[in-house]
Order: sequence, then structure tokens, then C-alpha cells
Amino acid sequence: MHTRLLLDAGSGGRAMQELIHSCFQKAFANPILDTMDDAALLSALPGRLAMSTDSYTVTPLFFPGGSIGSLAIHGTVNDVAMLGAKPLYLSCAFILEEGLELAVLERVVDDMAKALHKARVQIVTGDTKVVPKGGCDQIFITTTGLGSLLFDDPPSGHKARPNDAVLVSGTVGDHGLTIMAQREGLHFASDVRSDSQALHFMVERLYTAGLSVHVLRDPTRGGLATTLNEIASQSHVGIRIDETRIPISESVVSGCSFMGLDPLYLANEGKCLCFVPMDEAEKALSILKEDPCGGDAAIIGHVTEEAGRVILKTALGGERLLGLLEGSQLPRIC
Amino acid sequence: MHTRLLLDAGSGGRAMQELIHSCFQKAFANPILDTMDDAALLSALPGRLAMSTDSYTVTPLFFPGGSIGSLAIHGTVNDVAMLGAKPLYLSCAFILEEGLELAVLERVVDDMAKALHKARVQIVTGDTKVVPKGGCDQIFITTTGLGSLLFDDPPSGHKARPNDAVLVSGTVGDHGLTIMAQREGLHFASDVRSDSQALHFMVERLYTAGLSVHVLRDPTRGGLATTLNEIASQSHVGIRIDETRIPISESVVSGCSFMGLDPLYLANEGKCLCFVPMDEAEKALSILKEDPCGGDAAIIGHVTEEAGRVILKTALGGERLLGLLEGSQLPRIC
Repeated sequence: MHTRLLLDAGSGGRAMQELIHSCFQKAFANPILDTMDDAALLSALPGRLAMSTDSYTVTPLFFPGGSIGSLAIHGTVNDVAMLGAKPLYLSCAFILEEGLELAVLERVVDDMAKALHKARVQIVTGDTKVVPKGGCDQIFITTTGLGSLLFDDPPSGHKARPNDAVLVSGTVGDHGLTIMAQREGLHFASDVRSDSQALHFMVERLYTAGLSVHVLRDPTRGGLATTLNEIASQSHVGIRIDETRIPISESVVSGCSFMGLDPLYLANEGKCLCFVPMDEAEKALSILKEDPCGGDAAIIGHVTEEAGRVILKTALGGERLLGLLEGSQLPRIC
Repeated sequence: MHTRLLLDAGSGGRAMQELIHSCFQKAFANPILDTMDDAALLSALPGRLAMSTDSYTVTPLFFPGGSIGSLAIHGTVNDVAMLGAKPLYLSCAFILEEGLELAVLERVVDDMAKALHKARVQIVTGDTKVVPKGGCDQIFITTTGLGSLLFDDPPSGHKARPNDAVLVSGTVGDHGLTIMAQREGLHFASDVRSDSQALHFMVERLYTAGLSVHVLRDPTRGGLATTLNEIASQSHVGIRIDETRIPISESVVSGCSFMGLDPLYLANEGKCLCFVPMDEAEKALSILKEDPCGGDAAIIGHVTEEAGRVILKTALGGERLLGLLEGSQLPRIC
């Protein structure tokens, strides 16, 4: 038995069949995947569809609160959910480095299987490439999600309207700070954990409650501040945020102050922004809080007519313009 | 103006927005992609669906007959088509290496745009990651395709039946030999070109002609021999192939003999195998030949009851067992 991945496993021949069978098919088994045809055959899906894709290149592969495996499921499930859709099927493409420890791959695949099970979605088709040692860094995963739209008028970054309330479903900065602390070997941050989680059941609650959700978006790379700027720009509106209302865990506050980071620009992997008309804000807040992913949800601001301007009212009562992320805080955060 | 890709372009901030806008959005523009939400919103698709994904890591990036860009479109379009479906939408995820020449990226993207246009499919959603120099080799692309099923009884690797005729839509070995010759710097092979092309219009012809297509599959990695073995195994049948009937170009024959390669194990990127009942074989052949991709189509064998055995009748009149690809002929062929 080999303990490391051989280049042969990407050749299309016997070694690849063995890897697919012993590792992927076993973990992801379902009747659609099991046909092993070139494409997955899916039953007709009712109504309009949402489709989204993401590549995951995060390093380290494992971190407190998750791994590249769970992230590759949650991240894509969330992108589909942000269009107000119910994620149903995923495809999954691996790019693997020759010499990768098979035990590492199996641990990643096991995390994926657990996340799939919990999210009640299936991997229905996949691909495996193996590149020679040095051709990539261990494991890259690309997942693509497909879901059925729930909302008749689906949320979009273009639909923020003046006087909408801006809610966030929980604390910000957790994922970004976790990865940074891991990479820097900062053990002070031992209680910081990635927030990686799937948000689609929470989105279903918002739908079931009959709320007029204008915008849903998960503030991943670039963080809360960058995502608010994108929405302001797409909707030609302004956004005012009250710093004191933004939920941030104490560990993230202290970790950020130690490392000189602004938590509003750190990636999140299990939070969403939700814009609803002001008169639905309290109802939306209580719906978010009912969900296991939304315990720390808060109303953090509102939409204005100051097109393109995102303004933060600081804890000291001042105001400052909150811009897009400039430069790079950290590569390979997700 | 930078001429090389900066790490910032993967950060989710301003640099990424600029790259997406100046490069991807311009080349792939369509109303669905242009919304720039987390997911693409697709109209309801009629009937059952086919979904397929592939990562492309081919090296060199450009080769006679194509590039990683055209391959990333054709390969996934073909996988969707092999289920007897009409490909409609693609997602596209880039993993890019810091320092990549932007002119190279633009050339790749331009090839993708041309292939999309010709295939009449759209990229509706995407993702861009940039990894630090050395984290990957230049450009990896993962595309996922979605299409509508044409056939009521869709073709599958499980549906080969004894006495089916086995057809191939053209010459074999072209793509694999082209990549090998490029990498080895073998200029003798100057007239060998990749066969990379989209096959879905040809599949539509088969459907429109009312043929009972049992199996469609494109013999990519592992080549014709490996693909026939997969089908034999999935369908619990045997397959007999007549070597003298397999179309192979003279350049591929001579290149293979020079390099000691077996063209039946070389990857193809624009050919398919098609299994139909024997009494429809001539009709299927003429339909394939009518298509611009099928000029060299041929009936190369038939299905037997010898479960799992693929047998080649050689040019000299002997017989040999044609196995799966063992080991690796070449990494990063697609």
C-alpha cells in the first residue's frame, strides 16, 4: 500500500480508478455520483436556478473550526444561498500534488462528507487531476453549486434601497484572524475559531417568514467593509454603519489589536449581510437569532441616498469613510 | 500599468475588482454574468439536467490546435454532451500564480471567449484566486457545465448491449501526441495538432436523427483503450475492436512509432465513442460524417457477451487483450 499520492493517480488509468473508488466514491456515495458517467444526470429542478463556483486554496489545510474540506462545501453552499436559493447539488474538482500524504487527503474528504451530510447536499460529479511535485501546493478544491430559487424576487447586490436596514448574522473577522494566527504561529489566539458554516437553512427561515429580503451576501474575502462597498456600488446607494453595533468576539478584537488588523476587512465564512425594509428589521433580526448560525445577529446600520459612500460611525462618535480593501491582507485565506 | 499579476488581485479588494472587470467581464460579457452577484440566476431549464466539472492543468499553456483556454471550454462542453445533453451554461474558476504575465492570461481568456462563442454557451459565474509565486504553475482553470437532456433515454456507460456497433467520431491520439511532442521539443511532429473541439452539435445531430444511442463517451485521459475498458466494465459486456478500422492520422502513427507510444492510450479532446444497435450503425456513421467534427468517423467494432474483456483484432490478424492504462503516460495532458 502506498501512503503518498502517485502521479499515476491522475492519468485516467487504473491508479485513478482506484483512488476514486477507495477515497471519493466511498465518502460521497449517492445514486447520481455512483453512475460514474462523464456528467451527472439530475432530475428536473423546479423554477429558476442558482449556480456558483469557488476554488479553495486555503493554507494551512486544517485550522481551528474547519479545513479546506469543510470550507469547500460551506463556501459554495453559501454563495448559492445568497441568491435566495436552496442548494441541492455540488460538483467537485480536485487538483492534487504528487506525493501528498493519502491520510491528509482522506481527512479532507472526510470533512467534506460530514459537511455535505449536515448541509443535506450531494456531490454528484467530480474530477481529479494530479500534478507533479511542486506543480501545486498540496490540495486545491473547486466546487460548483446548483440550487433552486426560493424567492420570487431573489435578493441581489443591486437591490439595496434607501432606508433598508442592514443586518449581519453574527460576529465578524473570525475566519480571517484564525487563518492569520495559524500561519503566524500565534498561540495567543488559541480561542479564535473559523466561523465556517453553511447558511442556507437560515436563508430558508427568512424566506418562510415572508420577509422582503433585498440583499443577501456573505462577506468573505475583503470582509464586511469591502462587501458593503460592493453593494453600495451595485445599488447606487450609500450605507451607514454603527461601529458599536457590529458584533465582534473579544478574542478577535484583542487578536486584531495585537496584529494591527482591522476586523472589518477580515474574511468571514459563515456570516451573511441581510438588507430588509426598515419596518421588517426587527422581525428579520428575530428570525436570524432563532437559527443556530445567527445567535449573535445584529442590526448594524441602514441604507442612505449617498450613492457609493459607506460611512462608519465610530465608537467615539466620529464618522469615517469605509473604503474597499486596498492591497492584500493575506493570500490563500479561502 | 502592471504587466504581471499581483498577489493583491486575489484578495477580494480593489485589485481583484479591476482584474475581473478589465479581463474576465469584458471577454465573457453576458447579462447573467454581468450582475456580479455571488451566484448566477438562471431561468428554469426544461426537463432533466446534466452537470459536469473538470479542472484543466495542461502544460504547455498553448499548443498547436488549442490552449488551456479552449480546452477548458471544449472539455466540459463535451462531458455534458456525452450524457446526450445540450450544454447551456458554464461556471469558471481560475487559480492563478502571482507574477503571471497578464498578456498570457489575456490570451487564454481570449481563447476561452472564442470557444464559448463558437459553442454558443455562456460563462455565467466565476471565481478568481491568486496564489503566491510557486503555489501553482501559472494557470489552472476549473469549468463546470450545465445542460438540458435531449434524449428521453440518455446514453450512459452502463447501456452498452451485446451486438451494439462501436463507432469513433474521428482519428485518435492527436491531442496526447501533440502535448508530448511540444513538451519534448520534438519538431518532427510539426504537423500534429490537438483535436480539441466541442462535440455537442454532433450529439444534437444524433438525437435529431432519432438514433438509439446507448453510449457516448469521449476518450480523454487513458485514451480509446481505457475508455472502452470502462464501458465494458460498467455495462458487464465485452468489446471487440478491429485495429485496421481505427482512424489514426499518418503523423500520429509515425510520431507514436518514433516515441514508442501506443496511440490507443493517448488522450483525445475532440472525439467521441458512440454505441448504437448494429442495425443503426450505418445511419449513425453517416450522421457523424455529416458533422464538421466527424469527417473521419468509423465503425471500429462491436459489443460481445464476454463481460469485461476488450479485445483488439490486430492488423496481422491476431488478437490481444486491450487493458486499462497502467501507470502514467504523461501528467498534465489536459
